Amino acid sequence: MVNEPHSASNGSASSRSDGSSSGSEGSKDSSRCSTPVLDAERHERLREKMRRRYDSGDKWFSLEFFPPRTANGAVNLISRFDRMGMGGPLFIDVTWHPAGDPGSDKETSSMIIANTAVNYCGLETVLHMTCCNQTKEEITGHLQKAKHLGLKNIMALRGDPIGEEWEEEVEGFNYAVDLVKHIRCEFDDYFDICVAGYPKGHPEAESYEADLRHLKEKVSAGADFIITQLFFRSKTFLAFMKDCQAIGITCPIVPGIFPIQGYHSLRQLVKLSKLEVPQEIKEVIEPIKDNDAAIRNYGVELAVSMCRELLDSGMVSGLHFYTLNREVATTEILKRLGIWKEDPRRPLPWAVSAHPKRRVEDVRPIFWASRPKSYIHRTQEWDDFPNGRWGNSSSPAFGELKDYYLFYLKSKSPREELLKMWGEELMSEESVFEVFTCYISGEPNKEGHKVTCLPWNDDPLAAETNLLKEQLEKVNRRGILTINSQPNINGKPSTDPIVGWGPSGGYVFQKAYLEFFTSSENITALLKVLKTKKYELRVNYHIVNVRGENITNAPDLQPNAVTWGIFPGREIIQPTVVDPVSFMYWKDEAFALWIEQWAKLYEEESPSRMIIQYIHDNYYLVNLVDNEFPLENCLWQVMEDTFELLNCPTEQ
Amino acid sequence: MVNEPHSASNGSASSRSDGSSSGSEGSKDSSRCSTPVLDAERHERLREKMRRRYDSGDKWFSLEFFPPRTANGAVNLISRFDRMGMGGPLFIDVTWHPAGDPGSDKETSSMIIANTAVNYCGLETVLHMTCCNQTKEEITGHLQKAKHLGLKNIMALRGDPIGEEWEEEVEGFNYAVDLVKHIRCEFDDYFDICVAGYPKGHPEAESYEADLRHLKEKVSAGADFIITQLFFRSKTFLAFMKDCQAIGITCPIVPGIFPIQGYHSLRQLVKLSKLEVPQEIKEVIEPIKDNDAAIRNYGVELAVSMCRELLDSGMVSGLHFYTLNREVATTEILKRLGIWKEDPRRPLPWAVSAHPKRRVEDVRPIFWASRPKSYIHRTQEWDDFPNGRWGNSSSPAFGELKDYYLFYLKSKSPREELLKMWGEELMSEESVFEVFTCYISGEPNKEGHKVTCLPWNDDPLAAETNLLKEQLEKVNRRGILTINSQPNINGKPSTDPIVGWGPSGGYVFQKAYLEFFTSSENITALLKVLKTKKYELRVNYHIVNVRGENITNAPDLQPNAVTWGIFPGREIIQPTVVDPVSFMYWKDEAFALWIEQWAKLYEEESPSRMIIQYIHDNYYLVNLVDNEFPLENCLWQVMEDTFELLNCPTEQ
Repeated sequence: MVNEPHSASNGSASSRSDGSSSGSEGSKDSSRCSTPVLDAERHERLREKMRRRYDSGDKWFSLEFFPPRTANGAVNLISRFDRMGMGGPLFIDVTWHPAGDPGSDKETSSMIIANTAVNYCGLETVLHMTCCNQTKEEITGHLQKAKHLGLKNIMALRGDPIGEEWEEEVEGFNYAVDLVKHIRCEFDDYFDICVAGYPKGHPEAESYEADLRHLKEKVSAGADFIITQLFFRSKTFLAFMKDCQAIGITCPIVPGIFPIQGYHSLRQLVKLSKLEVPQEIKEVIEPIKDNDAAIRNYGVELAVSMCRELLDSGMVSGLHFYTLNREVATTEILKRLGIWKEDPRRPLPWAVSAHPKRRVEDVRPIFWASRPKSYIHRTQEWDDFPNGRWGNSSSPAFGELKDYYLFYLKSKSPREELLKMWGEELMSEESVFEVFTCYISGEPNKEGHKVTCLPWNDDPLAAETNLLKEQLEKVNRRGILTINSQPNINGKPSTDPIVGWGPSGGYVFQKAYLEFFTSSENITALLKVLKTKKYELRVNYHIVNVRGENITNAPDLQPNAVTWGIFPGREIIQPTVVDPVSFMYWKDEAFALWIEQWAKLYEEESPSRMIIQYIHDNYYLVNLVDNEFPLENCLWQVMEDTFELLNCPTEQ
Repeated sequence: MVNEPHSASNGSASSRSDGSSSGSEGSKDSSRCSTPVLDAERHERLREKMRRRYDSGDKWFSLEFFPPRTANGAVNLISRFDRMGMGGPLFIDVTWHPAGDPGSDKETSSMIIANTAVNYCGLETVLHMTCCNQTKEEITGHLQKAKHLGLKNIMALRGDPIGEEWEEEVEGFNYAVDLVKHIRCEFDDYFDICVAGYPKGHPEAESYEADLRHLKEKVSAGADFIITQLFFRSKTFLAFMKDCQAIGITCPIVPGIFPIQGYHSLRQLVKLSKLEVPQEIKEVIEPIKDNDAAIRNYGVELAVSMCRELLDSGMVSGLHFYTLNREVATTEILKRLGIWKEDPRRPLPWAVSAHPKRRVEDVRPIFWASRPKSYIHRTQEWDDFPNGRWGNSSSPAFGELKDYYLFYLKSKSPREELLKMWGEELMSEESVFEVFTCYISGEPNKEGHKVTCLPWNDDPLAAETNLLKEQLEKVNRRGILTINSQPNINGKPSTDPIVGWGPSGGYVFQKAYLEFFTSSENITALLKVLKTKKYELRVNYHIVNVRGENITNAPDLQPNAVTWGIFPGREIIQPTVVDPVSFMYWKDEAFALWIEQWAKLYEEESPSRMIIQYIHDNYYLVNLVDNEFPLENCLWQVMEDTFELLNCPTEQ
């Protein structure tokens, strides 16, 4: 019943966790834990996450991507990361393209794509790196850069030698094992290292057995796990795995799955990997080689049945997918296997970043709710992140946002589409009201185009905002141009499909929030309403124009918690606040988006552009919080009262 | 409508608080506030608090005490501080007794009494200090010590010269002004300085006018406010105040009120202060000089009417009371004036300390709820205090508690009384159960004595615990010896008279908590019950014996928030947690109290002592938290289920 005796005399407390399998992080030498652990995995390195899944028997998958060729390709790949990230991959990996200046700052480089995946999409990411034909200094430079960007995992590869006449260099990097050794030597245990395994032996190896020995050398040199080259039959992998175990390779070996998605991609890959396609597959494919859909369907079937065999073998807990940067086939396979997360649990109400220095971050201002990548970008130079309480940690100011062109901050829609949605030609401020109203209602605009994004919201309305749709539509029609809102919530289960977040068994709460642009006439009426006794103590407001002229009733410029959660056996989590100080930084960005994203669609001095410019110069940005979260949201009544006052100007 | 323009370009945000009169603490150069401000006054120095009251027109009072002669007197004075502190004095002050080794570490010294008032009673405190017949080094030493102990206010006095033949010393401290200059010179602006004013002129001054000039010198040298010598007529003070203003004294001048409480104390004070008692007072007092009650009633009447005149003059916002260490008269006067706080708002659920380094402290483990002075003592060496989140800041371990003899940690009841309450002779463990049961029920024990304290609770049952009385009584009868508990609360107004705390307009929440000692037989059954599905995910438990053998289901040894509050325009406040790590320190103290406070009442090897020793050696200390705060508290059902299991041992 009892366990290890506790020494009461030396002043340090130790205790064992009984009934919970997890560790006792940071509690031995301090009187308290160093960080709260809402989501244990967020604090683990990849090999620990893998181990946790292995121990629990939970199946997992990972996804391989290659860097895009063009800037547009980068924008698309990042939205693919966001979408496929929803399915819950344990990690993604980005291949290293020696010909594409892979370590550079170009938006299409391997380094920058991996950086974006980690920091902006919050994905655990493995960056491939090859070593042949590179100097030690170049490789160290790449590794240092990767570390600085928050990358924690490297897939160490030899890479393809350039030219036919490749010769081993003395003291050079000739094999992946040299790179593994170099990483461990220069960076100690910082990186988790993955190496490649060849179920049929490396094409250049003297023999299958010799290749196995090379693999063992890579593991002995410090690799943490193995991902295999593609194969066509499950028995190929299972035999390989047994052979690995027989020679003492004990680390995880993850099968690489290549869903056949087309005739040409298969041929190309086979040529590169020097693998032979089994006769039974060839026989099916050849007759349908011009029917892409048929080949993909076959590829899905084939992959599903092979994956099932692997998972059923009891030797495999994770599957690695060569996606070829495509979504449909892999997603379908994962769904059919039942390992795609249909209802991803949100650890926090906003998308977390996977940079190690942001591990403890658990509070953000609500303003960037629809622009999390911009928030991450503007705070990337911070050395520490608020944790537990916004007001608690001191951090440098927000960076200015001038980099609207950065591919991970750009709108996914091209200019022509934006013009269709937001109007080729604006006639008046009312045309702008209509755009906002259509975005909320989902109805097409006068030209018949649906408005699926706004400069402040690059995605369609969130499920939670949908709860407020009717009221939002009404106020937007009247020139209350809403860009952010949330309903009040008085203790819904943390598993609620719409507003839930965090571990199960908890309760989540929200204060009603509304943020909008509106004209100075409306502001005059609104302020009169807000200062009536009815709302004075109940509603906190911040009202600011582009010049920073600011009106607020926030006590002592303190932040106001607007989302919080209570969980079993945890401290309170309060992930979003309305912070008066950061609101002044947000307003710079919110006003600039009128110009950067909208006005600039039109010719200079065109009437359309002047209308947007007028709004930018003259409207106010307002945020309202209803502090009475247990009562019915009063912010709609505030709006009603304001409209009423505007309708009866004599009573002013 | 709008105000100062905000410069958007320099990256720093500034804004003005409109509708709130308070400042914008710490928001200029950082992107966030440095500390949350739940109770603005907690962050202000005395002169700022005085200014705030002056601006708002709120009347206030302060209380003067002298150090006690005996150790028992110190215990009594500290409980008087706690009681009179409830009425909401702006500050208290402690006089300096040169004959009583005032700067020493003796429990009766001025320094230690002031230290206790600040740190353990949470009172804003002014320490008197005299300077004549002392070296510069001695004085600096006293000031340094005061600063180190967290004292922030000094009343700078000359003191009475020793002997008849006092002569000015060259370069010495001859007048209070020398001390004021010295404090400002050596400690800059650290201390708030108070000086004495003499409404009738100092008895040794050449003239009233000369004395006024001396007072002005003291203010010019750096004094922040003036407290006057006692006087008998309001017009004396008001004339003095006008004279002060006329010569340019602009700082606050607080009238010193001396409630006549007895014939002899009046005579003695008059002799010391060389004041003359007005004829009309003498005429009333002389005939009743042997009737203490009559004199006190008269003194109260006199003080009330004089104070009313002062307050009604519009020139006075605060009153300073010479209490003579007595409670009744001053309290009555304050109540009749309506400036005694009848319903003190608790800023936090526990008593805060007034040491400046604890200003941001707003989280504590629940374990010390009934022993806050012990908690403060054991954490006095911490350099920073948890703020916002318990797990957030790293601090050294708790100090060991061996100093049970310290007067501010001692029981208020003497040994004889404790024996009457807890039993002159214990017969069995059941006799101990009875003591606990009587403490809870309020019923007298078999010998007819009420049990008003226990080693873990030196005060009668808290109002909040009273809510649980019936259930507590029941389980104590069965040997579940409860020492701490709270009911669950799902969002009661922060103004609730029993469970409310913090500013108005908020909501407070609690998880149900129960802490008790019990036998290992009971623990076996309890653990079986706790591990059933019904409670497994709902109840967190920690079970530990004196040797530290520990059983818990707390995830990752994380703290569990058990009290929190949501306030308008604020971040979440979570003032109490159940922290697994500090529980191991608390158990040392909780077990030791059996021996230190109870067993040691009896002869060594006496049966009574052996019973307590047995309990100490064999019982477990248990805490339980029901995480489902919105549902009915399940901990009583856990107890029922445990008793049922114990009653049907065959089903085990």
